[in-house]
Amino acid sequence: MATTTTHTTDAVRSTAQIPLRPPQDAVPLGDTRNGRIPLLDPRPTAPDPRFAASAFVGEAVVFQVTAFREGHDAIGVHLRLTAPSGSESLHRLRALGDGFDRWEVLVSPREQGLWSFRFEGFADEYATWQHAAEIKIAAGVDAPLMRQMGAELFDRAADEKTRPAAERRAIAAAAADLRDTRRDDIDALAIVRDPQLASFFAARPVQSLLTLGEDKALWVERERAGVGAWYEFFPRSEGARRLKDGTIKSGTFRTALKRLPGVAAMGFDVVYLPPIHPIGEVNRKGPNNTLHAGPGDPGSPWAIGSAAGGHDTVHPDLGTLADFRAFVRAARAEGLEVALDLALQAAPDHPWVSAHPEWFTTLPDGSIAYAENPPKKYQDIYPINFDNDPAGIRDEVLRIVRHWIAQGVKIFRVDNPHTKPLQFWEWLIATVLREDPDVVFLAEAFTRPAPLKALAYSGFQQSYSYFTWRNTKAQLEEFLTWISHDTADFMRPNLFVNTPDILTEYLQYGGRPAYKIRAAIAATGAGSYGVYAGYELYENVARPGSEENIDNEKYEYKMRDWEAAEASGDSLAPYLTRLNAIRRKHPSLRQLRGLSVHWSDDDAILVYTKHLPAALSDEGVDDTIIVVANVDPHSTRQTMVHIDSSRFGIPRGSDFVVEDLITGARWTWNQDNFVLLDAFAEPVHILHVKGTP
Amino acid sequence: MATTTTHTTDAVRSTAQIPLRPPQDAVPLGDTRNGRIPLLDPRPTAPDPRFAASAFVGEAVVFQVTAFREGHDAIGVHLRLTAPSGSESLHRLRALGDGFDRWEVLVSPREQGLWSFRFEGFADEYATWQHAAEIKIAAGVDAPLMRQMGAELFDRAADEKTRPAAERRAIAAAAADLRDTRRDDIDALAIVRDPQLASFFAARPVQSLLTLGEDKALWVERERAGVGAWYEFFPRSEGARRLKDGTIKSGTFRTALKRLPGVAAMGFDVVYLPPIHPIGEVNRKGPNNTLHAGPGDPGSPWAIGSAAGGHDTVHPDLGTLADFRAFVRAARAEGLEVALDLALQAAPDHPWVSAHPEWFTTLPDGSIAYAENPPKKYQDIYPINFDNDPAGIRDEVLRIVRHWIAQGVKIFRVDNPHTKPLQFWEWLIATVLREDPDVVFLAEAFTRPAPLKALAYSGFQQSYSYFTWRNTKAQLEEFLTWISHDTADFMRPNLFVNTPDILTEYLQYGGRPAYKIRAAIAATGAGSYGVYAGYELYENVARPGSEENIDNEKYEYKMRDWEAAEASGDSLAPYLTRLNAIRRKHPSLRQLRGLSVHWSDDDAILVYTKHLPAALSDEGVDDTIIVVANVDPHSTRQTMVHIDSSRFGIPRGSDFVVEDLITGARWTWNQDNFVLLDAFAEPVHILHVKGTP
Repeated sequence: MATTTTHTTDAVRSTAQIPLRPPQDAVPLGDTRNGRIPLLDPRPTAPDPRFAASAFVGEAVVFQVTAFREGHDAIGVHLRLTAPSGSESLHRLRALGDGFDRWEVLVSPREQGLWSFRFEGFADEYATWQHAAEIKIAAGVDAPLMRQMGAELFDRAADEKTRPAAERRAIAAAAADLRDTRRDDIDALAIVRDPQLASFFAARPVQSLLTLGEDKALWVERERAGVGAWYEFFPRSEGARRLKDGTIKSGTFRTALKRLPGVAAMGFDVVYLPPIHPIGEVNRKGPNNTLHAGPGDPGSPWAIGSAAGGHDTVHPDLGTLADFRAFVRAARAEGLEVALDLALQAAPDHPWVSAHPEWFTTLPDGSIAYAENPPKKYQDIYPINFDNDPAGIRDEVLRIVRHWIAQGVKIFRVDNPHTKPLQFWEWLIATVLREDPDVVFLAEAFTRPAPLKALAYSGFQQSYSYFTWRNTKAQLEEFLTWISHDTADFMRPNLFVNTPDILTEYLQYGGRPAYKIRAAIAATGAGSYGVYAGYELYENVARPGSEENIDNEKYEYKMRDWEAAEASGDSLAPYLTRLNAIRRKHPSLRQLRGLSVHWSDDDAILVYTKHLPAALSDEGVDDTIIVVANVDPHSTRQTMVHIDSSRFGIPRGSDFVVEDLITGARWTWNQDNFVLLDAFAEPVHILHVKGTP
Repeated sequence: MATTTTHTTDAVRSTAQIPLRPPQDAVPLGDTRNGRIPLLDPRPTAPDPRFAASAFVGEAVVFQVTAFREGHDAIGVHLRLTAPSGSESLHRLRALGDGFDRWEVLVSPREQGLWSFRFEGFADEYATWQHAAEIKIAAGVDAPLMRQMGAELFDRAADEKTRPAAERRAIAAAAADLRDTRRDDIDALAIVRDPQLASFFAARPVQSLLTLGEDKALWVERERAGVGAWYEFFPRSEGARRLKDGTIKSGTFRTALKRLPGVAAMGFDVVYLPPIHPIGEVNRKGPNNTLHAGPGDPGSPWAIGSAAGGHDTVHPDLGTLADFRAFVRAARAEGLEVALDLALQAAPDHPWVSAHPEWFTTLPDGSIAYAENPPKKYQDIYPINFDNDPAGIRDEVLRIVRHWIAQGVKIFRVDNPHTKPLQFWEWLIATVLREDPDVVFLAEAFTRPAPLKALAYSGFQQSYSYFTWRNTKAQLEEFLTWISHDTADFMRPNLFVNTPDILTEYLQYGGRPAYKIRAAIAATGAGSYGVYAGYELYENVARPGSEENIDNEKYEYKMRDWEAAEASGDSLAPYLTRLNAIRRKHPSLRQLRGLSVHWSDDDAILVYTKHLPAALSDEGVDDTIIVVANVDPHSTRQTMVHIDSSRFGIPRGSDFVVEDLITGARWTWNQDNFVLLDAFAEPVHILHVKGTP
C-alpha cells in the first residue's frame, strides 16, 4: 500500500498521515453496539477502561484496532486524532496480516495534554475493485464488466470536490481509458496496476459503509515523564568532612552543588535527592540499621520530622530553603532537573504527631502504632492512617507538594506508594496535574503486579520495576518485552540499576563486568533509567544477610573521592558518560516502545533492537540500535546471533553495516552473525545500524 | 477460611454462600475512579465491555476480581448477586494466593435471564486482628494490647443486631474471657485460634472501609444453550429408496421420523437438520460438486429456493409443513429437540430474486452477482447484499425465524454467519431473544479468531470451533484450556467431530480408532458436541483433493443400514451410546469449565480432568472424571501419567480409586500412574474418581 508522509502538522508525526477530510456519512449505529464494520479492542488503552492510556511528547505510540468485515471485500481503517489544541489529523492503518485482524499505525504526538482519538472503518471500494479486476482481467473473466465497474468508481472519485484538481483529471482520464473500446485489456490491466492511481486512492479512498469507532482518550505528558537518565545522591555526603575530633560535619546544599557539574558531565538529566527534611531524634537508627544511634549518627532521611520541622522544612544541617533553591538553580544551569523524595510517614517527633494525632493510629493503650510486620516493629516510623481524617491529610500533602513545586521542583519520587491508598494517589496526582501538567511522579512500587500496574494507570508517570531482579537472558527477554509491549500503553518503568535499598547478588558477586552489563542494559532497555551514587565506584559489599550496601549511606555520611577513582581507572563514570552520550544521540533509545528481542545460540547472550522509523524522528532518518549483551559477568562467550532485520526496515537476507558505539569497530552483518563478548573487556555491543552497504 | 453452604436460595448454588446482609455504609467514591479498596478486572466478562458475559443455567461460573489494599491489613471480598427474579445472595471469595491478587468464588446460577453482580471489598477486622494476635501473643509481644483490641472488636460484633443471638452470646463471652485477667495468654491464644469464632466471622465479617465495585451484568441462558449432544442427519436420506427404474425416491419427514428412536437410543439431545426448503433448479450442483445435475440429482439443500418457495417453505419431496410439525412432535416425544439450519443465501430461482432484486448485488451489466472468490464463481448461489435495504432484510429474516419458531423450533444452526454483517446478527438474536429467551443460535463460524469471538459475544450462544483441526496432544491441551478458561465467559464451542463439509485427514487415515478417540474427547471436552450421521459407520473416504466425504450427501441421497452395521459390529453406535450415557450421569461433563490439563510422559497421551464441586451439583457430591486419551490412532502407547489431584479436592499424594466407565476396570491411583492404551482396543480411559479408598 502506498502511503505518504507529506501532510504532517506540528502536532503529530506519523508513519502514514493522509490529508485531513471530515468524516463522510456514517452508517448509523441504530440499535446495535457493533457498527457496520466492527472496530474492536482499540489501543492504546489502560487495562481499566475508566482510565485513559498515556504517552509522552515524542513517543512512537502504537495505535491498533481489530477490524474486519464479512466476505471478501476490502476494508480500510483510519485513525482520526484530535490534539489538545484542537488540530485534527487523519492516519491510514495497515493490516498486520497476523491472522487476528489487527490494523496498526505509529503516531508520535507532539503536544502535551489530553488527546482524543477514534478509528474509522470503511469499505475500500478501490481496493475491492483493484483486487478483483487484477485477477479477473488477467484471467480473461468478466473483463468488460470489471472495466465498466472501474470506470464508474473512477467517475465517483473524479467528482469529489475535496480531491485536488490534478488528481481528479488523472482519474477521469483513467475512467475514459477503461471505457475506450479501442484500448485492449492489456491497457486496462496497466490502469488497474497503476501505482500513481493506487497512491491517490490510498490517500483519499473512496469509502462506503463508513463506521465510526468509540471516542477514546490519550493523555500525553512532557518528554521527561518518559525519558531521562537519573542520578541519585545524598546531599549530606557531598562535602561532608571529618573533623579533628573524629566526628563528621554534614555536607550542605552549598557543598553538594559542587557535585552537579560532575553529574552533568556524565550526561544525566535528573538529580534525585533522598528526603531533605529534618530527621527524627526519637528512636533514630544507627549505622547498619542498628536500633540505637550515637550522638554523631545522622539517621535515616526517611525518618522524617523532628522539633526542627516536618515535610515542608529543610534539614538544618543542609542549610536553608534559600540554599535549596540555589541548589535547584545550579542544577538547572547544568541542564539538570531536581527530583525530591515524597515519603509520607513520620518520625515520632514529627510535628504532625502532636498537632494531628488523628493522622496516625492510636492503640487502646493510648500509644501511637509504630510501623510493624508482626512481630517486628519499626520504632523510628509512624505510618499515616489515611482513614481518620482523609480530607485533612489530602490538604496537608497537597500543601507540601505545592510548597516544593514553588521551590522549583517538578519531579517527585514517591516512597512506597503501595503502602498508602491507591485512591489517595489518584486524587493527589490528578489535582496536582490540573494545576501543573509538567509535574512528574515516580512510584517506588516494589510490590506485586496488580498494585504496580494500578498505580501506573491511576496517575504515576513512572515506576521502579522488577528490573534489578531480572538478570538472566530469559528473564530479561521476557521483562523487556513486557515493558515495551504488554504494559507500555499505561506504565513506564525507570530502570534503576541500584538504590540505597537494593544491591543485588548479581552486583555483589558479578564483579566490575556486572556493573557494566547492568548499566548498558538499563540505559538502552527503556526510556528512563537510574543510578544511585557509588555505583560508578563498584561499591559491591552488602551487609551480611541483606540485599543492601554495608555501612549504608541511609544511616551514615559517605565521603567518596570521585576524581581519584577516575584517575586510577577505578570508576565506571567514563562508561556511564558514554552510555548517556549514546542515548542523547540516538532517539530510538529515548523510546519505551520499538524494542524487539532477537536470538542467539548462547544462553547468556541477550540480543535486542530499538528502532524508530524516520517518519517519527526529529532527524528524519531511521534510527536503529542493536544491543548484544553477555549477561554472564564471569566469562567470555562466543556464539551466533540471529537478527530479523525486517523489524527495522531492512529486508531479511540483506547485508547491513553496524558500528559499535562503545569501541568504534565496524562490521557488515546479515541474518546470522558471529559475536565474541569478553565480560572482562567489553561485555556489551551497542551497535548502530548504518544502513545497507 | 471456614465457609458454609447452608444459605442456598433456589436461584443459586455456590461454593461459599454466606447469609445475606444489606451493604453497610460504603466509603464514597468521591472524585476518584478507584475505590478505597481497589476492585479491578471483574470476571465473568466479555472482551468488549459493551456486551454482557453469558452463562447457562447450572453452569459453574468462575467469579473473580483483583482486590488488594496498601500495607499488611487483611481484606475480604464478597460477591453480591441479583437474580432476574430480584432475589439477592452474598458469596465470600477466597484469595487465590497466585501473586496476582485474584479472588474467586464459583457460583452456579439456576434462573434464566439477566443477572447483575457486584464485588464488595472491605477491611476484614477480625482477620487482621487474628493474624497479628496469633503471632504476637505467641511471641509474648503486646499480649495485653492484643487481648484488649480483640475484646473491643468482639464487643462490636456482639452488638450487631443482624447476628444470631446465640452467636452474639458466644462472641460476648469470648470478649469477657479476653479481658479476664485471671485467664492467662494460653487461654487467650485458644480464643484467637477458636475455629467456631472464625466461622462466625467468616460468615458475618466485621467490615470497615467497605467499597462497592461496579454493577456488572451476566446473561444466563437455558441449559441447552451450553449443554447437549447433537446428531445431524439429512431427512431426505432416511427412508429414501431406489425405485425399479434406478432412480431414488426421496425420504420424507414421515419416513425420517422413524430414525428418531434410534437417535434417542444413542442418547443424543438435539437432532439438527440441514435446510429443509425447496432447492434451486437453476445451476443445481450434481454429485461430488459437479457443475451440472442430472434429472434425478436432488441438489444441495444449501442452494435454497425455487419456484416451490423459499426459506419459509418445506421442500415438496419432504412433505408438508404439517408433516414437519409431526416430525418435531415425534422428536419431542423421544426427548429430542429439533435444530434447523438458517442459511441466508438464495438459489437463482429463489422467490426473493424476482420479488426483491434489491436484496442482491446487481452488476453494471444488469446481472445479479454470484457468490465468488475471484476468479472462481459459485453459480448456484446468490449472496445477499445486506446494505441496499437493511430494514427490508431484517423484517424478512425475522419473519422467517418467527415462522419456524411457530412450528416448534427453538434451535437454529446458522450457516456461515461470518459472511454476513455482525451488526445484523446482533440485532436479529437480541430481537428474537426478547420475544423468546429459549431460542438458541449455533454459529457455523469457521473463520479467524476475531470474528469467531465477536460473533459469540454479540449474541450466538454456541459456535463450531477449531476442534476438528486440533488433533495432537499439544494442540488439544492448548485448545481445551482455551475453550474452558480463556473464552468461557462469552463463547461456548460445540465440538462437532465431523460435518458434511469436514472429514479431516485424521479421520481419513486414522482408521476406526480415530473415530473412537475423537468422539471420546468431543463428548468429554466441552458441554456440547456433535456428530454428523455416517460417523458411526466410519465413513472415511474423501473426495480426492478435498476435506469432505466422497459421494457427499450434500448432493446425493445416502441409504444407510444402521441395524446391519450394528449387528456385524461395524458401528460406533454402541460406543456413542456409552459416551452419552456417561455424560448424562456425570454433571462435570455437562460443564464447559472445570477442565484441567494434567501431564503424561508420552507425546500422544493426553490427560485432563473435569470436576464439579459437590456444592454446585444437583446430587450434592463431587463429580470428577479423568480422561486419558491415546491420540495416536495407529499404535499402543504406555507411559506414566501425572495427576494433580488437588485440582479436584483430593490432597496431592493421597490414593484415590478410579473406575473406567468404558471397561468397568478399577484401579487405585495416586500422583503418578502407569497406563497402557491400545488404539485398537480402547484408546481412551474415561475414569470416574470414586474417592479415597
